[in-house]
Amino acid sequence: MTVALSSDGNHSAAMAQRHLPIGVFDSGVGGLTVLHALREALPQESFVYLGDTARLPYGTKSPESVVRYATQCAATLVARGIKALVIACNTAASAALPALQARYPLLPIVGVIEPGAEAALAVTRSMRIAVIATEGTVQAGAYRHAIARLNVNAQVTETACQVFVALAEEGWTQGLIVELIIRQYLDGLFSTAQAPDTLLLGCTHFPVLRSALRTVLPENVVIVDSAQTTALAVAKRLQSEGLLCDELNRHGSVHFLATDGAARFARVGSIFLGMPLETSEVDIIDV
Amino acid sequence: MTVALSSDGNHSAAMAQRHLPIGVFDSGVGGLTVLHALREALPQESFVYLGDTARLPYGTKSPESVVRYATQCAATLVARGIKALVIACNTAASAALPALQARYPLLPIVGVIEPGAEAALAVTRSMRIAVIATEGTVQAGAYRHAIARLNVNAQVTETACQVFVALAEEGWTQGLIVELIIRQYLDGLFSTAQAPDTLLLGCTHFPVLRSALRTVLPENVVIVDSAQTTALAVAKRLQSEGLLCDELNRHGSVHFLATDGAARFARVGSIFLGMPLETSEVDIIDV
Repeated sequence: MTVALSSDGNHSAAMAQRHLPIGVFDSGVGGLTVLHALREALPQESFVYLGDTARLPYGTKSPESVVRYATQCAATLVARGIKALVIACNTAASAALPALQARYPLLPIVGVIEPGAEAALAVTRSMRIAVIATEGTVQAGAYRHAIARLNVNAQVTETACQVFVALAEEGWTQGLIVELIIRQYLDGLFSTAQAPDTLLLGCTHFPVLRSALRTVLPENVVIVDSAQTTALAVAKRLQSEGLLCDELNRHGSVHFLATDGAARFARVGSIFLGMPLETSEVDIIDV
Repeated sequence: MTVALSSDGNHSAAMAQRHLPIGVFDSGVGGLTVLHALREALPQESFVYLGDTARLPYGTKSPESVVRYATQCAATLVARGIKALVIACNTAASAALPALQARYPLLPIVGVIEPGAEAALAVTRSMRIAVIATEGTVQAGAYRHAIARLNVNAQVTETACQVFVALAEEGWTQGLIVELIIRQYLDGLFSTAQAPDTLLLGCTHFPVLRSALRTVLPENVVIVDSAQTTALAVAKRLQSEGLLCDELNRHGSVHFLATDGAARFARVGSIFLGMPLETSEVDIIDV
């Protein structure tokens, strides 16, 4: 159905659209680091976050299943009314971004992969970039391929740092244990003459380890946080489409949805969100 | 269909049954510690091991789903011909043992929970037992309930040691990092006057950390390994049912099945099995 709007009506519709929340989804709680970065970059915006905790992890599922799950998550958020969609999950962004863009051609959709790849290329001087991610992301080569699409001369080393995920979920983000584990994974890589000068955090869990990484890594290494770079990409995209909320004094709200386990979502999610989250704030839904 | 057998036929049937393999299943590779213990206890027996890697982890799924998955795994193994079934997965043993026993009343079925609970009660002198397990097992209280069913006076402390799972899967089973993490989780528990004298390893991943745990824990603490105790329970059950393989010089075979990811199964599985495992040895099947 097409509705003919007066110029006033068009104006109101655009205003209403600008006040819609931004939808964000992930297979679990890791994407809350992206939400955290989005809220810092865009404090006046509202968000609805969906963690598909009943079906996590996506990383070990087939690409077809991931596309199906991502489509269901997107449809759930679109049905609630959103003005943009952020895929805050490396596996889903890698597998399902084109399918979601095809399905919702008018909706701005941003995944976590490309912004991180672009930012890493923007800061590296040696063109040697290290990516740390989960085993699934490394195996799929998501960042390696995204960086190569932008610049074939970049040398990308990908390291699976699976124990970081457990540390982050346990809330162990500082101290001797964390530093020793970082050294165990990365000392070899950063102690050679041909060491990378850029470290891209290619897993949504890893931003909470950023300060420990900073302590351990050589000073010249720039850490690129794909949560922050995704937030900046979303801000830029909304700006260019005239969709930024224009009430600059507004303090945007957040609505949390999960497909299972509100208590764990709230407990572990607090670590990634960087602020307390109560079980009662998490609505359990089917997608 | 009932087949009337001559006494000779009965004898041959019993003999043939004794030579059937023992079926073992888990949601992934952790159950290979149970297989390792079974092979040490019963070297002449053959085994068929199924890791439902496509649907792991079971720990975060609903009990109904776990019962359905476990039933499918059991049916797959029964269809291949087995003389006994071992549920080498805490979540599946806790949720599905009664359902599987009801479905296969003539098949000896052993889960990992009860043998561990019995063994812990057999060795404790103070009646204070510590259980370490995954978050899911602790939340379900599987060992706490199993121990309480056997002796209401036992005091059981359950600690979720989620980072141990990642360490075990990464093959980090010894050294400073592992010892510091053990201390982080357990020092508080074992440094009090009312400390437990028994530590039950309530996760199939944890036997590979046994020697590191031994280094860190007070000398008086007895470590009960539920993989070993399950293997002994299986041996006892086969003995009592006259199903032990009677060719004592035979060296039993093992057939590995998984529902996804043969390469990862082989690589990570080697750690738990305690011997090299090649990708080509793992058959991928649907259940």
